[in-house]
Amino acid sequence: MSTLAGTTIDRAQIERLVRQALTGLTNGHGHGAPSGHTPNLVVNISARHCHLTQEDVDILFGKGYQLTELKRLYQSTDFAANETVAVVGPRQRIIPGVRILGPCRKFSQVELSFTDSISLGIDIPVRLSGDIEGTPGCLLIGPKGSLVMPQGVIRAERHVHMGPKDCEYYGVKHLDRMNLRIEGNCPTTLEGLLVRMNPDWKLEVHIDTDEANASDVTHATKVTLVKA
Amino acid sequence: MSTLAGTTIDRAQIERLVRQALTGLTNGHGHGAPSGHTPNLVVNISARHCHLTQEDVDILFGKGYQLTELKRLYQSTDFAANETVAVVGPRQRIIPGVRILGPCRKFSQVELSFTDSISLGIDIPVRLSGDIEGTPGCLLIGPKGSLVMPQGVIRAERHVHMGPKDCEYYGVKHLDRMNLRIEGNCPTTLEGLLVRMNPDWKLEVHIDTDEANASDVTHATKVTLVKA
Repeated sequence: MSTLAGTTIDRAQIERLVRQALTGLTNGHGHGAPSGHTPNLVVNISARHCHLTQEDVDILFGKGYQLTELKRLYQSTDFAANETVAVVGPRQRIIPGVRILGPCRKFSQVELSFTDSISLGIDIPVRLSGDIEGTPGCLLIGPKGSLVMPQGVIRAERHVHMGPKDCEYYGVKHLDRMNLRIEGNCPTTLEGLLVRMNPDWKLEVHIDTDEANASDVTHATKVTLVKA
Repeated sequence: MSTLAGTTIDRAQIERLVRQALTGLTNGHGHGAPSGHTPNLVVNISARHCHLTQEDVDILFGKGYQLTELKRLYQSTDFAANETVAVVGPRQRIIPGVRILGPCRKFSQVELSFTDSISLGIDIPVRLSGDIEGTPGCLLIGPKGSLVMPQGVIRAERHVHMGPKDCEYYGVKHLDRMNLRIEGNCPTTLEGLLVRMNPDWKLEVHIDTDEANASDVTHATKVTLVKA
């Protein structure tokens, strides 16, 4: 897979959190668009990453440590931190360099692909971010300490962030489902993306690396988002 | 992902070549079926593997070494060998334990997922098995030697093996395209599967681990194969 920035370092999957795959290849199929709003469809690929509580940051990086910003994300409330952790599962394998997303949250959560979870030996469910009750845990290792996270390892459910005008354009509402059709080398329709609406959000599809690699979305010739 | 055999060792992706994911969850949508033939739809997941010439086996395992059979594949002309190699790419990373498929062929070829190829730093094309002209190479390491394979690293194009009665049932012919709809946790339609017909073949879809993990095919509730 070539990269968007055209540099070889961008190929380093585990070193990157979110790669912007597609911007404006299509504006989707509108169901009305009465306001003249033309959405800018962005598909971003979430590589493995984690969210941490400040308490867990204290354990992993030292008491009072503050995450530092590497890069602001497309939804600009969040950032990719310079800091990373290692994730360990029951097969005694390690995935180093798992990017932390800031700012800190009220719960710690690790988001992996199924490829990652099979490698680690953790049987993870598909969950909406934040819905971690009853999910498996893992061992996290930082430069100053390690901890057993009792739960919170999930595969994030494919979803699309939307503002109100985007919802209007596509004829959908919060928690509806949409399909993402990816044309190109490995044509694929990812079905059932969950709509998440918030007045502050920009239109952005989030898929994980398994979904991105299955569909070769970074080389797509056309991407279309439609109501399911 | 749970496993088919229900044992934890089956989760070891790199230790397994082909996991039989689905048998008979559906018999697809026929386009006629005049003969009364009811196909048994099998979807198998091809994990990373390689085919080698005897000459390359000689270099990697010692002069005159003969591959030994671990397990016969569903298309019973081929077998998973006990022997594995390590694959190395330009990022100085290694994937150990890549299964060899026997018997030896007239060309050496390594089949990886995009997840694998990104990790190794090899920019691989999607190709039909055997179509390796102009593809990138890699370094192979065996117990008795190593070699630079000048070309032959590909992502295998998703495809379906069929016998003549299967083609008749689905209303397709050799080199037609089909779609595989996977319903369940991560609903996905993998489009454009290439039909490969041979009188000796059993009906069998081959997808790779990226496609299997994106769609969570091992937990699918229904799988349907239809003409594209």
